[in-house]
Amino acid sequence: MAEPRITSLDGKLAEEFAIPSHVDEVKEQMSDFAGHHVRAGRRVVLITSGGTKVPLESRTVRFLDNFSSGRRGASSAEYFIDSGYAVIFLHRHRSLFPYARTFSTINMLDALQFRSGQGGSGSAEVVVNQQVLPNVPKVLKRYQEVKEQRLLLPIEFNTLSEYLHLLKAAAQALNTIGSKAMFYLAAAVSDFYIPASEMPEHKIQSSNGPLQLSLNMVPKILSPLVKDWAPQAFVVSFKLETDATILLGKARRALDTYRHQVVVANILDSRRGYVVVVTPDTQAELILTEEDVKNDIEIEERIVSNLTSAHNKFINQQVG
Amino acid sequence: MAEPRITSLDGKLAEEFAIPSHVDEVKEQMSDFAGHHVRAGRRVVLITSGGTKVPLESRTVRFLDNFSSGRRGASSAEYFIDSGYAVIFLHRHRSLFPYARTFSTINMLDALQFRSGQGGSGSAEVVVNQQVLPNVPKVLKRYQEVKEQRLLLPIEFNTLSEYLHLLKAAAQALNTIGSKAMFYLAAAVSDFYIPASEMPEHKIQSSNGPLQLSLNMVPKILSPLVKDWAPQAFVVSFKLETDATILLGKARRALDTYRHQVVVANILDSRRGYVVVVTPDTQAELILTEEDVKNDIEIEERIVSNLTSAHNKFINQQVG
Repeated sequence: MAEPRITSLDGKLAEEFAIPSHVDEVKEQMSDFAGHHVRAGRRVVLITSGGTKVPLESRTVRFLDNFSSGRRGASSAEYFIDSGYAVIFLHRHRSLFPYARTFSTINMLDALQFRSGQGGSGSAEVVVNQQVLPNVPKVLKRYQEVKEQRLLLPIEFNTLSEYLHLLKAAAQALNTIGSKAMFYLAAAVSDFYIPASEMPEHKIQSSNGPLQLSLNMVPKILSPLVKDWAPQAFVVSFKLETDATILLGKARRALDTYRHQVVVANILDSRRGYVVVVTPDTQAELILTEEDVKNDIEIEERIVSNLTSAHNKFINQQVG
Repeated sequence: MAEPRITSLDGKLAEEFAIPSHVDEVKEQMSDFAGHHVRAGRRVVLITSGGTKVPLESRTVRFLDNFSSGRRGASSAEYFIDSGYAVIFLHRHRSLFPYARTFSTINMLDALQFRSGQGGSGSAEVVVNQQVLPNVPKVLKRYQEVKEQRLLLPIEFNTLSEYLHLLKAAAQALNTIGSKAMFYLAAAVSDFYIPASEMPEHKIQSSNGPLQLSLNMVPKILSPLVKDWAPQAFVVSFKLETDATILLGKARRALDTYRHQVVVANILDSRRGYVVVVTPDTQAELILTEEDVKNDIEIEERIVSNLTSAHNKFINQQVG
């Protein structure tokens, strides 16, 4: 029953979403990265993060976007690394980045100063003002360790097309490591797009009056990912809604439809302090207390802890 | 003839575009800033920069956006300051920022290192690696001078509504300095929007099938800006097209319609090396040669030089 749909999806991907020219190169990078780390006894998580851009014109001036700073993906990457994972970080260009996210809210020039007591301006040393950025030594040290051990492979996307093709490439690359791969699909992916064939070439003219847009539905890539591309992997999807009354129903329906392992369900307004981790048999609420918030605990630490345990059980079940 | 249109635009602004709560406070800041600098013998330019966000839902998950990194606005701000102007920088949140734009393409953590020869990790000093960022002392020095002299007033917007109301406030604030004010409207402003009354509250459900969007035209704010809010100011608008054959016609038509001073016309693909500065009587092509590009000359330096001369003449004509 599912066969024709999947075939048509693969065809659709190739026809209606431009293939990025570097996709094969990236796939090889990801495959090498995964092989290396699994041989070293690690697990590998593919994190997607940030929103996708949907162009309205082929020479793009205007686009549709999804609200996402990339905070959840970037912070989760750090906790996965702390838990012994190697991380492929498939993220929207200029969205928040692991470790560097610490500086995202300030103008870096406000945190720099000339080193005092220096003479000639020729070799002026510029230092970080640690009154402005008290965490910088800790963050830099950790970043340098992670870089040295090559635990983080960053891959960028901008458009929905790039995202879809790179995710497919990642799934195929990670299929070789079977159940040791986790997919943590935190990106805010558009549900709608304009097919290349229906897109105007040039900037839409406002002198033509009000704009009518007709957008097609984006194929549900979770379906071939779970069934065909990486059938042994542990797959976590995210469900973000603004209406709390429909959230859990939608999470359960997604698990029924795609047959993957976990949906992390959250509401736009409370997403930094409350999520529900939904599996076919269980439902766990993760909540930050006021005390947690005061102590700078992030909910991603709890999410990652929950999921790495579940992934562990999942791997043992496959073996046993 | 124009009266009813303007009245209706003011009404429309208040009705269909949510007024930001801090608009009065910002207006006073801008007014104080302009007054202070004009008394000190400077001119004041209001630069708008970056794209506007147009929400599709009132609890926003999805939005329409315009392609713009904010590079032109950020770099122009620096050249205006070098030419003796004070700058109000009305920019999209997280778009490129004057001076800090130098670091926009790198991960700051790749440019930081622990100071060598240090003992205890307790007081580890973190310095900028000037092999990665050779310009940092020069840029930091200039940034600190500009900050000390308060020559740059940054104001942020996210949505189209915020942009429209803050621009109106800026125009009214700068009206008090008459012809000494320049408006340099480089932001990529949406031509279309969904009125608050027609916007769904919750996230649009993809299960309802393909998406039909009907967008209204954004009122042309240049018209009341030139006629009513700041009638003595020197006003520069930008025209970006992807189709070169319609560009100059559209620039001339804009000057005829809005009766302002200058349109800077440019084509998406060549915008960093070629613009046409169009006035009612003249048309000047500004072009970067290969030699210029090699020497890191930016086209904004030429644009700003052209416009500050024209502004000078404009002021003298008003006086004479």
